[in-house]
Amino acid sequence: MKTIQATEIEGWERFYRANFINSLTGFKSANLIGTVNQDGQTNLAVFSSIIHIGSHPALVGYINRPVAAAPHTLANIEATGSYTLNHIHPSILRQAHQTSAKYPENISEFEKVNLTPQFVTGIQAPFVKESHIKYALSLQEILPITLNQTFLVIGKIEQVILSEDRITEDGFLPLDQLSSIACNGNDAYYHAQLVERLGYAKP
Amino acid sequence: MKTIQATEIEGWERFYRANFINSLTGFKSANLIGTVNQDGQTNLAVFSSIIHIGSHPALVGYINRPVAAAPHTLANIEATGSYTLNHIHPSILRQAHQTSAKYPENISEFEKVNLTPQFVTGIQAPFVKESHIKYALSLQEILPITLNQTFLVIGKIEQVILSEDRITEDGFLPLDQLSSIACNGNDAYYHAQLVERLGYAKP
Repeated sequence: MKTIQATEIEGWERFYRANFINSLTGFKSANLIGTVNQDGQTNLAVFSSIIHIGSHPALVGYINRPVAAAPHTLANIEATGSYTLNHIHPSILRQAHQTSAKYPENISEFEKVNLTPQFVTGIQAPFVKESHIKYALSLQEILPITLNQTFLVIGKIEQVILSEDRITEDGFLPLDQLSSIACNGNDAYYHAQLVERLGYAKP
Repeated sequence: MKTIQATEIEGWERFYRANFINSLTGFKSANLIGTVNQDGQTNLAVFSSIIHIGSHPALVGYINRPVAAAPHTLANIEATGSYTLNHIHPSILRQAHQTSAKYPENISEFEKVNLTPQFVTGIQAPFVKESHIKYALSLQEILPITLNQTFLVIGKIEQVILSEDRITEDGFLPLDQLSSIACNGNDAYYHAQLVERLGYAKP
């Protein structure tokens, strides 16, 4: 057994601490967020801090780092109100992860990593053509988290695109069957293998 | 390929829609939140809506549903300022999931599902003894999400307990080696199998 106190964590080297805290919080969703600015310049960035906020209305949140550290995605969402979330699967994993490199604003990560922007009627932001599970969001609210200058960005689901219809009869989406992967920490990616579905619990 | 519009989702039966939207957002962390009220009554509840907010300070958030739907955990956190997050592994999975059943306030889910409250010096809320990765949080802020009456509850990590020290030399915690599981939707649980760690991406 190992016990670690807050004061010890605060004294750790920056990258060591970031790796530890990022993995301590558990498995996460691995996604690419696609956006476009008002001049039509596309942007693509990997995000794992996705959170389900509600189903009716269908609201999804993500945490955007302080503006100085991660400006482009948030600026584009504020400018257009539109963004897409695209699940990552193993055949696009390396390309997806590469979008986390700091490219200048005038560079599209789509081109740099060789993924294809996919535009559909009624949605301004580009989807990732190669992704198997993807959805478009319209911006609803940006909640500033003053504790550390991050933001909870909340959007409403406007359109969903699945490469195959694997929805079960009760609405569940078996993510493993469409090869979605899970993420841990800043850079580790995992296949998921079903243990079981347990159903609605009653006392 | 299957495309689904927002209007279609809004018309779906409630549980079908909740299953779909909850799985669409991708893999999640599977956790038990342990709390205690001011009379010493313990409470334990399964939560998957965990989100990393920052590493320095080490901040972790979770979404609490509207108070009427999920009152006990939030009330205890507000009363004591203390709570624990405990990763779920396969041998406690069924017990963990069973805590999602609606028990009255005077019933401790620890007893009902046969998990052991573990109290440690300096932390008011109980850990789950059987969990392999767990940490205590002190409440920092409760941000109301007025769009759907939910809350983003933000805490600072005060203490971490690992059943075994598997931290790598760069601070990373290989969750699969401590059997943490991932969650999808409301009731599906998964083993995770490492694809790869990709490291810090540069342009």
